[in-house]
Amino acid sequence: MKLSSVGELTLLEHIRRSFSRKSKNILAGIGDDAAVVKASDKSLLATTDMMIEGIHFDLDYVTPYQVGYKLVAVNLSDIYAMGGKPAFMLLDMAVNKNTDMNFINMLFSGINDALNRYNVYLIGGDVSASKNGTALSATVLGYAKKYIRRSGAHSGDRIYVSGCLGDSACGLELLKRIRRPVPMQTGDTIFRAPGSLKKLKMNLTWNTAGPLLRRHLLPEARDPGDFVRNATSMIDISDGLLMDLSRLCDESRVGARIYLEKVPLSFALRETASRLGISPIQLALSGGEDYELLFTAPAAKKVKAIYIGDILKSKRVIVDMAGKEKPFSAEGYQHFHE
Amino acid sequence: MKLSSVGELTLLEHIRRSFSRKSKNILAGIGDDAAVVKASDKSLLATTDMMIEGIHFDLDYVTPYQVGYKLVAVNLSDIYAMGGKPAFMLLDMAVNKNTDMNFINMLFSGINDALNRYNVYLIGGDVSASKNGTALSATVLGYAKKYIRRSGAHSGDRIYVSGCLGDSACGLELLKRIRRPVPMQTGDTIFRAPGSLKKLKMNLTWNTAGPLLRRHLLPEARDPGDFVRNATSMIDISDGLLMDLSRLCDESRVGARIYLEKVPLSFALRETASRLGISPIQLALSGGEDYELLFTAPAAKKVKAIYIGDILKSKRVIVDMAGKEKPFSAEGYQHFHE
Repeated sequence: MKLSSVGELTLLEHIRRSFSRKSKNILAGIGDDAAVVKASDKSLLATTDMMIEGIHFDLDYVTPYQVGYKLVAVNLSDIYAMGGKPAFMLLDMAVNKNTDMNFINMLFSGINDALNRYNVYLIGGDVSASKNGTALSATVLGYAKKYIRRSGAHSGDRIYVSGCLGDSACGLELLKRIRRPVPMQTGDTIFRAPGSLKKLKMNLTWNTAGPLLRRHLLPEARDPGDFVRNATSMIDISDGLLMDLSRLCDESRVGARIYLEKVPLSFALRETASRLGISPIQLALSGGEDYELLFTAPAAKKVKAIYIGDILKSKRVIVDMAGKEKPFSAEGYQHFHE
Repeated sequence: MKLSSVGELTLLEHIRRSFSRKSKNILAGIGDDAAVVKASDKSLLATTDMMIEGIHFDLDYVTPYQVGYKLVAVNLSDIYAMGGKPAFMLLDMAVNKNTDMNFINMLFSGINDALNRYNVYLIGGDVSASKNGTALSATVLGYAKKYIRRSGAHSGDRIYVSGCLGDSACGLELLKRIRRPVPMQTGDTIFRAPGSLKKLKMNLTWNTAGPLLRRHLLPEARDPGDFVRNATSMIDISDGLLMDLSRLCDESRVGARIYLEKVPLSFALRETASRLGISPIQLALSGGEDYELLFTAPAAKKVKAIYIGDILKSKRVIVDMAGKEKPFSAEGYQHFHE
């Protein structure tokens, strides 16, 4: 059934029922002029991120479920990147009146699965018609006792990442070649999209390709956990290691040295990138949407993360496999570019 | 200069400079993964509202300045409607890469004027390219010691509004006939758009038409102030008196009786509507975007607002000028309708 026959008021009622999980901290949830939540003695964190059809996602390649899941994950990632715990979300959704309710329901299902996975509550939002495609925007609120800014890195600090890089970008490259949605959802233990991989004629198994596609289609936000104690600066890697490290360096007014050999690459990435004829390290350095955390900590502190380099006074260099230093600059996706 | 030659990073830097007002409550503002604000012992309020080009606004009729001003005002209105004080805003903006920086600057100027007027701080946001027109979304955070829901009205309570209704809808009717933007800004004491009114051949002066246009183009959010002490329920009138009163009645599970003769109409509205051949009371009942507050309070309490009717157990009626009761239902704009 199309939205135009459902109408705004019925849709709003449907939203209220779809996101009805209760919390004692929510004094007024969906359905009033504003949401009300209990006071907290911690600092309040707030972040917002959009997903625009045709810019951030293309429904020829991703399912509405995946769009919903990702919208939540990328917003939560920003709260985690400040050392916070996400708690509440507001959702804005502009959709064409000819949109089918199936689309809406699948989108909500992805949003709900992500909210439940991270124990975050939807407390409000806005719906509107759109002239063309779908525009989504989420705002997430969270709390932190100690928060970590991008600007706290000091010369001598070590640089860490929370996990393998480049997987998401490699998943995207696969998807571009599969050229249709791979309908994986978060509960799936085995990914199957009959024919999708065969079509590629690359002799890839789902055991290898699945996790890469998953990293792109259903990204997870990383909880910094213990890292918060020692981290001096932190950012999530949404636009590629070099781009986000450059941001951290800009804000901290420092330089950095990264060792290529230390940048963590998954087996699946090496395996797949080689078959695709793409440099895995290039994907790791400049590919976006890994949502791993990049942070710095004093060299003397013991940190259970992957050490990839050091903060310098001002120069920004990569040490290649041969031990040679090369300068790096911010490389990654920028909106509005021709 | 077009956005495509400016680029995302320069735009972000420009945003940071444009909204650089400092507050001791902001621990981390624009430019990190998330904003951080100091803890408060009051309840936290959060609301969000979108403005989509072609749906909420049409640049053939309004200026970018007015779009920006209104985006802030409508969001603040939702915080006031809960009895809260707005404090912080996040802004999402998706714009076409061919957009001129003049557009961006005028939009920001309207946003900034509204933020300053209400002493609210921009603490974060997101920018993105859009495929077609502009999509804006704002999230406002505020605080309340005592918050007022839509659901607290009781049979016997009196119904109040904070000011005249229908002005904004009448302003819109004028604008539809003027058929071009009226470039008024908030600092203007005299409104002038040479020829605009003459074209209408209605012998209207700017003294009459100006305030109506202003109510539509540059709406103000109403601070409930003292009303909060006695209000049992409250909502802001964004979609028309009957629609929003119906919402309040739905949530409170009550009925209402409204006296037509008590619904406040401005002199400018009566004067202009009669020349337009439109019923002023119809505009007041079903016209949207007045952003006056509609609230209820016990009959015994003295309230300095305009008394327009009473909460009943269940029936919903309007008493017309002849003293005759007629049932009313929710009338007003709904998204997605054919």
